[in-house]
Amino acid sequence: MIPLSEMALRPVGWLAEEGPEADRVLSTRIRLARNLRGVHFVGKALDEDLTRGCQRITDAAVDLPQFAGGGAVLVGELPIVDRQFLLERHLISHDLASDTRARGLVLSPDEGLSIMVNEEDHLRLQAMRGGLRLEEAMAAARELDETLAGRLDYAWTPELGYLTACPTNVGTGMRASVLVHLPALVLTQKIKKILTGVGQVGLTVRGFYGEGSEVVGNFFQLSNQVTLGEDEEETLSKLTRVVRQILDWEEKAQERLMRDAGLQIEDKCLRALGVLRYGRLLSSQELIALLSAVRLGHSLGLRSVPPVAVLNDLLVRGQPAHLQKAVGREMTSEERNEHRARLVQETLRAAEQSKLDAA
Amino acid sequence: MIPLSEMALRPVGWLAEEGPEADRVLSTRIRLARNLRGVHFVGKALDEDLTRGCQRITDAAVDLPQFAGGGAVLVGELPIVDRQFLLERHLISHDLASDTRARGLVLSPDEGLSIMVNEEDHLRLQAMRGGLRLEEAMAAARELDETLAGRLDYAWTPELGYLTACPTNVGTGMRASVLVHLPALVLTQKIKKILTGVGQVGLTVRGFYGEGSEVVGNFFQLSNQVTLGEDEEETLSKLTRVVRQILDWEEKAQERLMRDAGLQIEDKCLRALGVLRYGRLLSSQELIALLSAVRLGHSLGLRSVPPVAVLNDLLVRGQPAHLQKAVGREMTSEERNEHRARLVQETLRAAEQSKLDAA
Repeated sequence: MIPLSEMALRPVGWLAEEGPEADRVLSTRIRLARNLRGVHFVGKALDEDLTRGCQRITDAAVDLPQFAGGGAVLVGELPIVDRQFLLERHLISHDLASDTRARGLVLSPDEGLSIMVNEEDHLRLQAMRGGLRLEEAMAAARELDETLAGRLDYAWTPELGYLTACPTNVGTGMRASVLVHLPALVLTQKIKKILTGVGQVGLTVRGFYGEGSEVVGNFFQLSNQVTLGEDEEETLSKLTRVVRQILDWEEKAQERLMRDAGLQIEDKCLRALGVLRYGRLLSSQELIALLSAVRLGHSLGLRSVPPVAVLNDLLVRGQPAHLQKAVGREMTSEERNEHRARLVQETLRAAEQSKLDAA
Repeated sequence: MIPLSEMALRPVGWLAEEGPEADRVLSTRIRLARNLRGVHFVGKALDEDLTRGCQRITDAAVDLPQFAGGGAVLVGELPIVDRQFLLERHLISHDLASDTRARGLVLSPDEGLSIMVNEEDHLRLQAMRGGLRLEEAMAAARELDETLAGRLDYAWTPELGYLTACPTNVGTGMRASVLVHLPALVLTQKIKKILTGVGQVGLTVRGFYGEGSEVVGNFFQLSNQVTLGEDEEETLSKLTRVVRQILDWEEKAQERLMRDAGLQIEDKCLRALGVLRYGRLLSSQELIALLSAVRLGHSLGLRSVPPVAVLNDLLVRGQPAHLQKAVGREMTSEERNEHRARLVQETLRAAEQSKLDAA
């Protein structure tokens, strides 16, 4: 597999391409939970079962054309900072990152397609795209799923569908999620009511790093709750409808903000850019908050704001384990803050330069 | 006289030239209080006396070579915004600005030499210089004083020296003051003790706009208290000694800050520059605070910080009446905040460009 220290230096492939609604939708993810028939679920399995299962799944996947140029890694054997790195890249979950047993990751070169092995389920197929691209991500996940179904024997029954470790995933085993940026709904304090409504139509809201994580930088992860009794198409079309509705509200809230307090909003967005360009120390939390403000400026069409792909890149590469992998050593929080500020400045300067070169 | 709306568009002549210690000393001022013999002090005078006195003093001064290209103006007859403008330029006092009787100002073209007429005393001769230049300012004030003494009959007695409306000025009638920038002493919380000590050696501390004004932007005006029983040279040499001592403490405090928290300080200074360059709204108070932080950065030798003359210029032209005179109309506070931010950005961009051109 590509060394993580190299990955840490470059933008995430699938995220570099700006998708539809890229201002307001950071990413789309489809995750399919699958298990091997006749093998204990991960929670009940013995270590040797896990090791054998991990080997079997990895062997079945790693030589597929989707993973050519990517590779497989035994996550459990990685140092903590490497696991943290994969977590920051949204490739593995907190659960997978905190366990050292036989757990694996199979990865495509642009990181848009991956398999978590022996997380809660034996397989978690993941397809990720920038912007709002549920259909496209679903197609990639489904293609991988069908190929693997020919090589592995999935636990499946006609009555229930796919069997999973947690009952909330039984059925389609699919979790579709969209990471949306809703700064104006937060600023106008409409977000709480909307999120409550989202729960009532069968969707779940999570934070930036998925289940159990906090909301940071006005990013909200919306995903389906139901996996049983409806097919994937129904689930996706419902999620799309709700997401589009929320994006519409966000757009209206942005228009209202600009009408009522346009200068104050511009001021907020551009000051954030000023601090990003000039600060010598930036904490993780502050970076995310500042990038959120600048992203809002992008939505509002402010000039002199860098492209969304640059903001996305900084959101990823500004994270603690990323900085440490890029520099090649452990760093204190203050050292990271300094390196983070430098990374931001160099990246923004390079983006500015390439804009000038293009003009 | 030069129209005030033109003055509002250009830097203050005497301040544009960076003097010694320009990082830490904004300006030096010598003020001589003089009164006409046999004429009531301003506080007791009838309106017609004031008018006659004002005419007499203005006539005696306005054709002197020092004032060629400058001129005289009846301050009392100016609209409020114009008086506010002259106050912001440190040419007249609060007292003079708030009275509409026969009060005048005679002004040299670079504004470095002026006479307030019928403030508390009949004449207040003022010489101003950028940086720490007490001797030079004194020489200019003395030269004007001696010339005027040949044209006007000053109230003077051999026992007391110059007679003044307020007993605190009797004797030399001289007030020498230095506007110092002491951000590190403020940050390290040593300032209070130092200012107490200053009082004990016969000096007074005032704010940015002189008597009765607040301390803003870490600027402190230090001046002599004593005018009776010592000559001007003694007063100046004592003030110089104390100012140099305080500047020395400030320098040491800056060194200590850089040693103990260098990155944090750089971060503070450069963020301030970032906000100045990118903000769309800036209040007066915030502008002064941000300029103070950037000025500290200059003291510390940070690159990418604009020259002190540019910071001084913004400190002056960013003031409310200046903005309104420059634009040519009254503006609300929010309009001013917008214009202020624009002025700052244009000025900083021009400074950046001329630095590039020079390189």
